[in-house]
Amino acid sequence: MDEVVLLDTWGSMFGMRAWIALEEKGVKYERKEEDLSKKSPLLLQMNPIHKKIPVLIHNGKPISESAIIVQYIDEVWNHNPPFMPSDPYERAQARFWVDYIDAKVYPTWNKMWLSEGEEHEAGKKELISIFKQLEETLGDKPFYGNEMFGFVDIALIPFYSWFYTFETYGNFEMEAECPKLVAWAKRCMQRETVSTILPNEKEVYNAVVEMKKNIET
Amino acid sequence: MDEVVLLDTWGSMFGMRAWIALEEKGVKYERKEEDLSKKSPLLLQMNPIHKKIPVLIHNGKPISESAIIVQYIDEVWNHNPPFMPSDPYERAQARFWVDYIDAKVYPTWNKMWLSEGEEHEAGKKELISIFKQLEETLGDKPFYGNEMFGFVDIALIPFYSWFYTFETYGNFEMEAECPKLVAWAKRCMQRETVSTILPNEKEVYNAVVEMKKNIET
Repeated sequence: MDEVVLLDTWGSMFGMRAWIALEEKGVKYERKEEDLSKKSPLLLQMNPIHKKIPVLIHNGKPISESAIIVQYIDEVWNHNPPFMPSDPYERAQARFWVDYIDAKVYPTWNKMWLSEGEEHEAGKKELISIFKQLEETLGDKPFYGNEMFGFVDIALIPFYSWFYTFETYGNFEMEAECPKLVAWAKRCMQRETVSTILPNEKEVYNAVVEMKKNIET
Repeated sequence: MDEVVLLDTWGSMFGMRAWIALEEKGVKYERKEEDLSKKSPLLLQMNPIHKKIPVLIHNGKPISESAIIVQYIDEVWNHNPPFMPSDPYERAQARFWVDYIDAKVYPTWNKMWLSEGEEHEAGKKELISIFKQLEETLGDKPFYGNEMFGFVDIALIPFYSWFYTFETYGNFEMEAECPKLVAWAKRCMQRETVSTILPNEKEVYNAVVEMKKNIET
Protein backbone atom coordinates (compact mmCIF):
# COMPACT_ATOMS: atom_id res chain seq x y z
CA MET A 1 0.00 0.00 0.00
CA ASP A 2 1.42 3.35 -1.07
CA GLU A 3 1.73 6.11 1.47
CA VAL A 4 1.37 9.46 -0.26
CA VAL A 5 1.61 12.81 1.53
CA LEU A 6 1.39 16.22 -0.12
CA LEU A 7 2.91 19.17 1.72
CA ASP A 8 1.00 22.15 0.42
CA THR A 9 -0.22 25.56 1.42
CA TRP A 10 -3.55 27.26 0.83
CA GLY A 11 -3.85 29.12 -2.48
CA SER A 12 -0.50 28.12 -3.97
CA MET A 13 -0.64 27.67 -7.76
CA PHE A 14 2.27 25.29 -7.50
CA GLY A 15 0.74 23.21 -4.74
CA MET A 16 -2.52 23.02 -6.71
CA ARG A 17 -0.70 21.44 -9.64
CA ALA A 18 0.39 18.47 -7.55
CA TRP A 19 -2.99 18.27 -5.85
CA ILE A 20 -4.92 18.22 -9.15
CA ALA A 21 -2.50 15.64 -10.57
CA LEU A 22 -3.16 13.32 -7.59
CA GLU A 23 -6.91 13.73 -7.99
CA GLU A 24 -6.75 13.14 -11.75
CA LYS A 25 -4.93 9.86 -11.18
CA GLY A 26 -7.23 8.82 -8.37
CA VAL A 27 -4.35 8.43 -5.94
CA LYS A 28 -5.11 8.12 -2.24
CA TYR A 29 -3.15 10.75 -0.36
CA GLU A 30 -3.04 12.88 2.72
CA ARG A 31 -2.63 16.63 2.21
CA LYS A 32 -0.94 18.66 4.91
CA GLU A 33 -1.20 22.42 4.92
CA GLU A 34 1.96 24.24 5.82
CA ASP A 35 2.11 27.65 7.45
CA LEU A 36 4.94 29.19 5.41
CA SER A 37 5.68 31.77 8.08
CA LYS A 38 6.51 28.87 10.38
CA LYS A 39 7.66 25.95 8.26
CA SER A 40 7.31 22.52 9.77
CA PRO A 41 10.33 20.37 10.62
CA LEU A 42 8.91 17.86 8.12
CA LEU A 43 9.02 20.40 5.26
CA LEU A 44 12.56 21.48 6.14
CA GLN A 45 13.64 17.86 6.29
CA MET A 46 11.91 16.86 3.05
CA ASN A 47 13.00 19.86 0.97
CA PRO A 48 16.23 21.07 2.60
CA ILE A 49 17.44 22.67 -0.65
CA HIS A 50 14.57 25.03 -1.46
CA LYS A 51 12.47 24.74 1.73
CA LYS A 52 9.38 25.26 -0.41
CA ILE A 53 6.03 23.59 -0.98
CA PRO A 54 4.80 21.54 -2.74
CA VAL A 55 6.61 18.41 -1.66
CA LEU A 56 5.22 15.00 -2.49
CA ILE A 57 6.30 12.30 -0.07
CA HIS A 58 5.85 8.87 -1.58
CA ASN A 59 6.56 6.02 0.82
CA GLY A 60 8.86 8.30 2.79
CA LYS A 61 10.79 9.65 -0.22
CA PRO A 62 10.39 13.33 -1.13
CA ILE A 63 9.92 14.86 -4.57
CA SER A 64 10.07 18.65 -4.95
CA GLU A 65 9.28 21.22 -7.64
CA SER A 66 5.71 21.17 -8.91
CA ALA A 67 6.43 20.40 -12.59
CA ILE A 68 8.67 17.51 -11.56
CA ILE A 69 6.04 16.21 -9.12
CA VAL A 70 3.37 16.21 -11.84
CA GLN A 71 5.65 14.25 -14.19
CA TYR A 72 6.48 11.85 -11.37
CA ILE A 73 2.80 11.24 -10.61
CA ASP A 74 2.21 10.64 -14.32
CA GLU A 75 5.04 8.12 -14.52
CA VAL A 76 4.22 6.22 -11.31
CA TRP A 77 0.44 5.97 -11.67
CA ASN A 78 0.71 5.16 -15.36
CA HIS A 79 -2.28 2.82 -15.49
CA ASN A 80 -4.49 5.93 -15.56
CA PRO A 81 -4.75 8.29 -18.56
CA PRO A 82 -1.41 10.03 -19.11
CA PHE A 83 -0.72 13.74 -18.68
CA MET A 84 2.12 13.60 -21.18
CA PRO A 85 1.64 13.16 -24.93
CA SER A 86 3.03 9.89 -26.27
CA ASP A 87 4.99 11.60 -29.05
CA PRO A 88 8.46 12.86 -27.98
CA TYR A 89 8.11 16.08 -29.95
CA GLU A 90 4.75 16.87 -28.37
CA ARG A 91 6.27 16.01 -25.02
CA ALA A 92 9.12 18.46 -25.58
CA GLN A 93 6.58 21.14 -26.53
CA ALA A 94 4.56 20.47 -23.37
CA ARG A 95 7.74 20.80 -21.28
CA PHE A 96 8.62 23.99 -23.13
CA TRP A 97 5.30 25.65 -22.27
CA VAL A 98 5.36 24.58 -18.64
CA ASP A 99 8.87 26.01 -18.45
CA TYR A 100 7.54 29.20 -20.07
CA ILE A 101 4.74 29.48 -17.51
CA ASP A 102 7.23 28.94 -14.68
CA ALA A 103 9.69 31.48 -16.03
CA LYS A 104 7.11 34.14 -16.85
CA VAL A 105 3.77 34.21 -15.07
CA TYR A 106 4.58 34.33 -11.37
CA PRO A 107 7.76 36.44 -11.68
CA THR A 108 5.94 39.01 -13.83
CA TRP A 109 2.95 39.13 -11.49
CA ASN A 110 5.37 39.56 -8.60
CA LYS A 111 7.01 42.49 -10.36
CA MET A 112 3.63 44.07 -11.02
CA TRP A 113 1.89 43.79 -7.68
CA LEU A 114 4.82 45.01 -5.61
CA SER A 115 5.58 48.04 -7.77
CA GLU A 116 3.96 51.32 -8.71
CA GLY A 117 4.05 53.77 -11.59
CA GLU A 118 6.04 52.85 -14.67
CA GLU A 119 7.29 49.54 -13.34
CA HIS A 120 3.75 48.53 -12.47
CA GLU A 121 2.51 49.49 -15.92
CA ALA A 122 5.37 47.61 -17.59
CA GLY A 123 4.63 44.55 -15.46
CA LYS A 124 0.94 44.71 -16.31
CA LYS A 125 1.63 44.97 -20.04
CA GLU A 126 4.04 42.07 -19.84
CA LEU A 127 1.61 39.91 -17.85
CA ILE A 128 -1.13 40.49 -20.43
CA SER A 129 1.26 39.69 -23.29
CA ILE A 130 2.25 36.43 -21.56
CA PHE A 131 -1.39 35.36 -21.31
CA LYS A 132 -1.96 36.37 -24.93
CA GLN A 133 0.98 34.18 -25.91
CA LEU A 134 -0.47 31.29 -23.91
CA GLU A 135 -3.83 31.84 -25.58
CA GLU A 136 -2.17 31.75 -29.01
CA THR A 137 -0.40 28.53 -28.06
CA LEU A 138 -3.71 26.95 -27.12
CA GLY A 139 -5.13 27.92 -30.51
CA ASP A 140 -8.42 26.21 -31.25
CA LYS A 141 -7.69 23.09 -29.22
CA PRO A 142 -10.05 22.33 -26.31
CA PHE A 143 -7.07 21.66 -24.02
CA TYR A 144 -3.32 22.17 -24.31
CA GLY A 145 -3.13 18.40 -24.38
CA ASN A 146 -5.66 18.50 -27.22
CA GLU A 147 -8.52 16.14 -26.29
CA MET A 148 -6.57 15.33 -23.16
CA PHE A 149 -6.37 17.41 -19.95
CA GLY A 150 -2.60 17.19 -19.79
CA PHE A 151 0.68 18.50 -18.38
CA VAL A 152 0.31 22.13 -19.58
CA ASP A 153 -3.35 22.24 -18.54
CA ILE A 154 -2.46 21.08 -15.04
CA ALA A 155 0.40 23.56 -14.82
CA LEU A 156 -1.65 26.57 -15.94
CA ILE A 157 -5.16 26.08 -14.57
CA PRO A 158 -4.30 26.91 -10.92
CA PHE A 159 -3.54 30.47 -12.05
CA TYR A 160 -7.22 30.83 -13.00
CA SER A 161 -8.06 31.24 -9.32
CA TRP A 162 -5.69 34.21 -9.34
CA PHE A 163 -7.10 35.92 -12.47
CA TYR A 164 -9.39 38.13 -10.38
CA THR A 165 -6.39 39.22 -8.31
CA PHE A 166 -4.31 39.92 -11.43
CA GLU A 167 -7.21 41.90 -12.92
CA THR A 168 -7.89 43.90 -9.79
CA TYR A 169 -4.27 44.87 -9.15
CA GLY A 170 -3.66 45.44 -12.88
CA ASN A 171 -6.96 47.11 -13.72
CA PHE A 172 -7.67 45.00 -16.78
CA GLU A 173 -10.09 42.26 -17.76
CA MET A 174 -8.88 38.82 -18.69
CA GLU A 175 -12.14 38.06 -20.50
CA ALA A 176 -11.62 41.10 -22.75
CA GLU A 177 -7.90 40.47 -23.27
CA CYS A 178 -7.91 36.69 -23.64
CA PRO A 179 -11.44 35.39 -24.23
CA LYS A 180 -10.28 32.01 -25.54
CA LEU A 181 -8.03 31.46 -22.55
CA VAL A 182 -10.91 32.22 -20.18
CA ALA A 183 -13.11 29.82 -22.17
CA TRP A 184 -10.41 27.16 -21.78
CA ALA A 185 -10.29 27.80 -18.02
CA LYS A 186 -14.07 27.41 -17.76
CA ARG A 187 -13.78 24.16 -19.71
CA CYS A 188 -11.21 22.94 -17.18
CA MET A 189 -13.50 23.98 -14.33
CA GLN A 190 -16.03 21.44 -15.55
CA ARG A 191 -13.69 18.81 -14.19
CA GLU A 192 -14.39 18.04 -10.56
CA THR A 193 -10.68 17.60 -9.94
CA VAL A 194 -10.22 21.27 -10.80
CA SER A 195 -13.39 22.91 -9.49
CA THR A 196 -13.13 21.33 -6.05
CA ILE A 197 -9.48 22.28 -5.63
CA LEU A 198 -9.26 25.84 -6.96
CA PRO A 199 -10.00 28.31 -4.16
CA ASN A 200 -12.56 31.08 -4.46
CA GLU A 201 -11.08 34.00 -6.44
CA LYS A 202 -12.28 36.60 -3.91
CA GLU A 203 -10.65 34.70 -1.08
CA VAL A 204 -7.39 34.61 -3.01
CA TYR A 205 -7.65 38.35 -3.54
CA ASN A 206 -8.35 39.03 0.13
CA ALA A 207 -5.39 36.89 1.13
CA VAL A 208 -3.14 38.78 -1.27
CA VAL A 209 -4.33 42.13 0.10
CA GLU A 210 -3.49 40.91 3.61
CA MET A 211 -0.10 39.71 2.42
CA LYS A 212 0.69 43.10 0.93
CA LYS A 213 -0.28 44.84 4.19
CA ASN A 214 2.12 42.57 6.03
CA ILE A 215 4.92 43.33 3.58
CA GLU A 216 4.34 47.07 3.83
CA THR A 217 4.24 47.27 7.60
CA MET B 1 16.76 9.85 -43.04
CA ASP B 2 16.67 12.26 -40.12
CA GLU B 3 17.80 15.82 -40.67
CA VAL B 4 19.22 17.19 -37.45
CA VAL B 5 20.55 20.72 -37.06
CA LEU B 6 21.89 22.25 -33.85
CA LEU B 7 21.90 26.03 -33.55
CA ASP B 8 24.64 26.75 -31.07
CA THR B 9 27.24 29.34 -30.17
CA TRP B 10 30.86 28.93 -29.17
CA GLY B 11 31.45 28.39 -25.45
CA SER B 12 27.82 28.15 -24.34
CA MET B 13 27.29 25.69 -21.49
CA PHE B 14 23.75 25.22 -22.65
CA GLY B 15 24.66 24.59 -26.26
CA MET B 16 27.30 22.10 -25.15
CA ARG B 17 24.65 20.04 -23.37
CA ALA B 18 22.75 19.43 -26.60
CA TRP B 19 25.96 18.88 -28.54
CA ILE B 20 27.30 16.27 -26.07
CA ALA B 21 23.90 14.54 -26.03
CA LEU B 22 23.94 14.21 -29.83
CA GLU B 23 27.48 12.81 -29.76
CA GLU B 24 26.63 10.39 -26.95
CA LYS B 25 23.75 9.00 -28.99
CA GLY B 26 25.79 8.84 -32.17
CA VAL B 27 23.32 11.05 -34.03
CA LYS B 28 24.37 12.56 -37.36
CA TYR B 29 23.84 16.31 -37.23
CA GLU B 30 24.95 19.62 -38.58
CA ARG B 31 26.00 22.25 -36.06
CA LYS B 32 25.60 25.90 -36.96
CA GLU B 33 27.32 28.57 -34.90
CA GLU B 34 25.28 31.66 -34.26
CA ASP B 35 26.69 35.13 -33.71
CA LEU B 36 24.48 36.24 -30.82
CA SER B 37 25.15 39.91 -31.52
CA LYS B 38 23.53 39.37 -34.90
CA LYS B 39 21.07 36.49 -34.62
CA SER B 40 20.23 34.67 -37.83
CA PRO B 41 16.72 34.75 -39.32
CA LEU B 42 16.72 30.97 -38.81
CA LEU B 43 17.27 31.30 -35.04
CA LEU B 44 14.57 33.98 -34.73
CA GLN B 45 12.19 31.82 -36.72
CA MET B 46 12.96 28.62 -34.81
CA ASN B 47 12.89 30.10 -31.30
CA PRO B 48 10.63 33.16 -31.56
CA ILE B 49 9.75 33.03 -27.86
CA HIS B 50 13.19 33.18 -26.25
CA LYS B 51 15.40 33.90 -29.31
CA LYS B 52 18.15 31.89 -27.63
CA ILE B 53 20.46 29.04 -28.51
CA PRO B 54 20.55 26.09 -28.35
CA VAL B 55 17.81 25.06 -30.71
CA LEU B 56 17.64 21.55 -32.09
CA ILE B 57 15.87 21.33 -35.44
CA HIS B 58 14.73 17.80 -36.14
CA ASN B 59 13.24 17.29 -39.60
CA GLY B 60 12.34 20.97 -39.67
CA LYS B 61 10.73 21.06 -36.23
CA PRO B 62 12.42 23.11 -33.49
CA ILE B 63 13.03 22.16 -29.87
CA SER B 64 14.34 24.79 -27.44
CA GLU B 65 15.72 24.89 -23.89
CA SER B 66 18.79 22.76 -23.32
CA ALA B 67 17.39 20.46 -20.62
CA ILE B 68 14.33 19.79 -22.79
CA ILE B 69 16.52 19.13 -25.83
CA VAL B 70 18.62 16.58 -23.93
CA GLN B 71 15.48 14.74 -22.77
CA TYR B 72 14.12 14.85 -26.33
CA ILE B 73 17.33 13.37 -27.74
CA ASP B 74 17.17 10.68 -25.07
CA GLU B 75 13.57 9.80 -25.95
CA VAL B 76 13.96 9.84 -29.73
CA TRP B 77 17.26 7.98 -30.07
CA ASN B 78 16.25 5.48 -27.42
CA HIS B 79 18.03 2.49 -28.96
CA ASN B 80 21.26 3.87 -27.46
CA PRO B 81 22.05 3.84 -23.74
CA PRO B 82 19.62 6.15 -21.90
CA PHE B 83 20.52 9.38 -20.13
CA MET B 84 17.56 9.02 -17.79
CA PRO B 85 17.35 6.46 -14.99
CA SER B 86 14.65 3.85 -15.50
CA ASP B 87 13.18 4.36 -12.03
CA PRO B 88 10.63 7.24 -11.81
CA TYR B 89 11.99 8.40 -8.45
CA GLU B 90 15.56 8.52 -9.74
CA ARG B 91 14.26 10.33 -12.80
CA ALA B 92 12.55 12.94 -10.62
CA GLN B 93 15.79 13.40 -8.69
CA ALA B 94 17.78 13.85 -11.92
CA ARG B 95 15.28 16.49 -13.07
CA PHE B 96 15.49 18.16 -9.66
CA TRP B 97 19.27 18.54 -9.88
CA VAL B 98 19.26 19.79 -13.46
CA ASP B 99 16.66 22.34 -12.40
CA TYR B 100 18.92 23.27 -9.45
CA ILE B 101 21.89 23.77 -11.79
CA ASP B 102 19.78 25.92 -14.10
CA ALA B 103 18.37 28.00 -11.28
CA LYS B 104 21.66 28.49 -9.47
CA VAL B 105 24.98 28.21 -11.31
CA TYR B 106 24.73 30.66 -14.20
CA PRO B 107 22.62 33.30 -12.40
CA THR B 108 25.03 33.29 -9.43
CA TRP B 109 28.09 33.49 -11.68
CA ASN B 110 26.41 36.36 -13.51
CA LYS B 111 25.85 38.19 -10.24
CA MET B 112 29.48 37.64 -9.25
CA TRP B 113 31.38 38.60 -12.38
CA LEU B 114 29.43 41.78 -13.05
CA SER B 115 29.67 43.12 -9.51
CA GLU B 116 32.32 44.40 -7.12
CA GLY B 117 32.83 44.66 -3.39
CA GLU B 118 30.29 43.07 -1.10
CA GLU B 119 28.00 41.85 -3.87
CA HIS B 120 30.94 40.18 -5.59
CA GLU B 121 32.00 38.50 -2.36
CA ALA B 122 28.47 37.32 -1.65
CA GLY B 123 28.20 35.93 -5.18
CA LYS B 124 31.52 34.14 -4.84
CA LYS B 125 30.52 32.55 -1.55
CA GLU B 126 27.21 31.49 -3.02
CA LEU B 127 28.83 30.03 -6.13
CA ILE B 128 31.21 27.96 -4.04
CA SER B 129 28.37 26.74 -1.83
CA ILE B 130 26.40 25.68 -4.92
CA PHE B 131 29.32 23.59 -6.17
CA LYS B 132 29.77 22.12 -2.69
CA GLN B 133 26.11 21.13 -2.73
CA LEU B 134 26.55 19.53 -6.15
CA GLU B 135 29.63 17.69 -4.88
CA GLU B 136 27.66 16.40 -1.89
CA THR B 137 24.90 15.23 -4.22
CA LEU B 138 27.40 13.30 -6.28
CA GLY B 139 28.66 11.58 -3.14
CA ASP B 140 30.88 8.63 -3.88
CA LYS B 141 29.26 7.73 -7.16
CA PRO B 142 31.45 7.83 -10.28
CA PHE B 143 28.77 9.79 -12.17
CA TYR B 144 25.52 11.47 -11.18
CA GLY B 145 23.87 8.73 -13.18
CA ASN B 146 25.85 6.24 -11.08
CA GLU B 147 27.65 3.89 -13.51
CA MET B 148 25.93 5.78 -16.30
CA PHE B 149 26.95 9.15 -17.78
CA GLY B 150 23.45 10.57 -17.56
CA PHE B 151 21.18 13.60 -17.60
CA VAL B 152 22.76 15.47 -14.67
CA ASP B 153 26.28 14.69 -15.92
CA ILE B 154 25.44 16.11 -19.35
CA ALA B 155 23.84 19.18 -17.79
CA LEU B 156 26.75 19.97 -15.48
CA ILE B 157 29.93 18.97 -17.31
CA PRO B 158 29.93 21.94 -19.75
CA PHE B 159 30.53 24.24 -16.77
CA TYR B 160 33.88 22.53 -16.25
CA SER B 161 35.28 24.54 -19.15
CA TRP B 162 34.28 27.65 -17.22
CA PHE B 163 35.84 26.61 -13.88
CA TYR B 164 39.07 28.49 -14.68
CA THR B 165 37.03 31.62 -15.41
CA PHE B 166 35.02 31.23 -12.18
CA GLU B 167 38.25 30.72 -10.24
CA THR B 168 40.04 33.66 -11.81
CA TYR B 169 37.21 36.12 -11.34
CA GLY B 170 36.43 34.75 -7.88
CA ASN B 171 39.98 34.22 -6.66
CA PHE B 172 39.43 30.69 -5.37
CA GLU B 173 40.41 27.18 -6.39
CA MET B 174 37.83 24.62 -7.37
CA GLU B 175 40.27 21.79 -6.69
CA ALA B 176 40.72 22.98 -3.10
CA GLU B 177 37.02 23.71 -2.55
CA CYS B 178 35.49 20.73 -4.32
CA PRO B 179 38.11 18.04 -5.00
CA LYS B 180 35.58 15.29 -5.64
CA LEU B 181 33.67 17.41 -8.12
CA VAL B 182 36.89 18.14 -10.02
CA ALA B 183 37.71 14.42 -9.98
CA TRP B 184 34.25 13.75 -11.43
CA ALA B 185 34.86 16.32 -14.17
CA LYS B 186 38.17 14.70 -15.06
CA ARG B 187 36.39 11.34 -15.21
CA CYS B 188 33.88 12.84 -17.64
CA MET B 189 36.75 14.27 -19.70
CA GLN B 190 37.91 10.74 -20.40
CA ARG B 191 34.89 10.48 -22.68
CA GLU B 192 35.70 11.62 -26.19
CA THR B 193 32.19 13.11 -26.48
CA VAL B 194 33.11 15.51 -23.69
CA SER B 195 36.82 16.19 -24.28
CA THR B 196 36.38 17.02 -27.95
CA ILE B 197 33.48 19.38 -27.31
CA LEU B 198 34.53 21.36 -24.23
CA PRO B 199 36.52 24.42 -25.27
CA ASN B 200 39.90 25.27 -23.82
CA GLU B 201 39.46 26.94 -20.41
CA LYS B 202 41.90 29.76 -21.21
CA GLU B 203 40.03 30.56 -24.39
CA VAL B 204 36.78 30.71 -22.44
CA TYR B 205 38.43 33.08 -19.97
CA ASN B 206 39.78 35.32 -22.72
CA ALA B 207 36.37 35.45 -24.36
CA VAL B 208 34.77 36.42 -21.04
CA VAL B 209 37.37 39.17 -20.49
CA GLU B 210 36.56 40.55 -23.94
CA MET B 211 32.84 40.34 -23.20
CA LYS B 212 33.27 42.34 -20.01
CA LYS B 213 35.26 45.01 -21.85
CA ASN B 214 32.40 45.32 -24.33
CA ILE B 215 29.85 45.64 -21.54
CA GLU B 216 31.88 48.30 -19.76
CA THR B 217 32.52 50.47 -22.80
